[in-house]
Amino acid sequence: MNVAIIVAAGRGSRAGGARAKQFREISGIPIIIHTLARFELCETVEEAIVVLPAGAREEFRALAARHGLRKVRRAVAGGETRAESVWRGLQAFGSEAVEVVAVHDGVRPFVTPAEIDRTVRAAEEHGAALLAAPAVETVKEVEGGRVVRTPERARLWNAQTPQCFRAELLRRAYGQPGALLPDVTDCSALVERLGEAVYVVEGGADNIKITTPRDFAIAEVLLKSRQ
Amino acid sequence: MNVAIIVAAGRGSRAGGARAKQFREISGIPIIIHTLARFELCETVEEAIVVLPAGAREEFRALAARHGLRKVRRAVAGGETRAESVWRGLQAFGSEAVEVVAVHDGVRPFVTPAEIDRTVRAAEEHGAALLAAPAVETVKEVEGGRVVRTPERARLWNAQTPQCFRAELLRRAYGQPGALLPDVTDCSALVERLGEAVYVVEGGADNIKITTPRDFAIAEVLLKSRQ
Repeated sequence: MNVAIIVAAGRGSRAGGARAKQFREISGIPIIIHTLARFELCETVEEAIVVLPAGAREEFRALAARHGLRKVRRAVAGGETRAESVWRGLQAFGSEAVEVVAVHDGVRPFVTPAEIDRTVRAAEEHGAALLAAPAVETVKEVEGGRVVRTPERARLWNAQTPQCFRAELLRRAYGQPGALLPDVTDCSALVERLGEAVYVVEGGADNIKITTPRDFAIAEVLLKSRQ
Repeated sequence: MNVAIIVAAGRGSRAGGARAKQFREISGIPIIIHTLARFELCETVEEAIVVLPAGAREEFRALAARHGLRKVRRAVAGGETRAESVWRGLQAFGSEAVEVVAVHDGVRPFVTPAEIDRTVRAAEEHGAALLAAPAVETVKEVEGGRVVRTPERARLWNAQTPQCFRAELLRRAYGQPGALLPDVTDCSALVERLGEAVYVVEGGADNIKITTPRDFAIAEVLLKSRQ
């Protein structure tokens, strides 16, 4: 069985507004529901766990029921860092026979079911795979306010999610010292730290993470262009 | 005197549509005019040269006159690569007493006059400065379809324009072997290659480069949010 951990435990202070951003609506539907609807439509993931702010689980259960989500079985409370939230999601599966775990940001509602499936299948084959898009912008490494390096753009990819791993590999990655610290920005970095190969699956540019008020406006545009 | 080179010589095949993207309209005004209007409002740049596709100069002159642009004195034909277009703009100034050159993408209409001024002043002080925004996404260096490195995100900045340089420094940078090749994605990289320090000026996330059809939709949203 392949499972998904949908990480939606942030309080979203950068997005503005009183409500946690994963519950804010685009075209009348909460972002987290848009996201989970993508997983409902994919072929490779059978079950999802949603990691939420501690006080939001009741609200979420009502939403999930109203929108007829079948794959979400559990909602667990998140931790202090993103990594801790992923870890709690992973713990919630206990000793079940999980093959591949797909970790996905709750505020990336534009991933396509086909992108999810391709990334899960790459992890089934290789052990670890992430969805990413080729970098469009020139990136600079900066130290003390000065450019110290311009990595060759053709080698750079923007990491997205899902990031998919064989369960035992992900458990080993999160068992490393320092794995739950705030500077861990994605699961792949922890797997890389083990020395394991992570494969890149090419995704589209629409799979944005909704973070700022501007992102909400862009999300409305993207959603309309798909309808 | 400080001058600007506005690079708008691309044919914009990624943007779709028959028309070169720099002439396509957002809210009824061509992108290149939006961009030049920003330079009209800044305090530090006295004159601008626009680098255009060879056949577009007549159309541009009519547009510039209609929109009352005062700082644009010349429109020159671009080259095969972005770097060659910048170089042609630089040549057009000849032996005039230019202190700082601000190189800016014609399809970045959301730069603010204050951002231009801060970057020009940083170049007056330090010799070389670029506008950039802190990276929001996790970036991977990829080789043969696998991740080989995750640069620490806190060190990464997305390069924007303007990129501003003392004129003699920029001339030296463009005089280097290989300076006009297609893999040169920005001026700063050439100055870095000389071993010169390039300072980073923090800009906002709105200063996007309009490249794809999706960017046009986003640009409409950004423009409305400013009005």
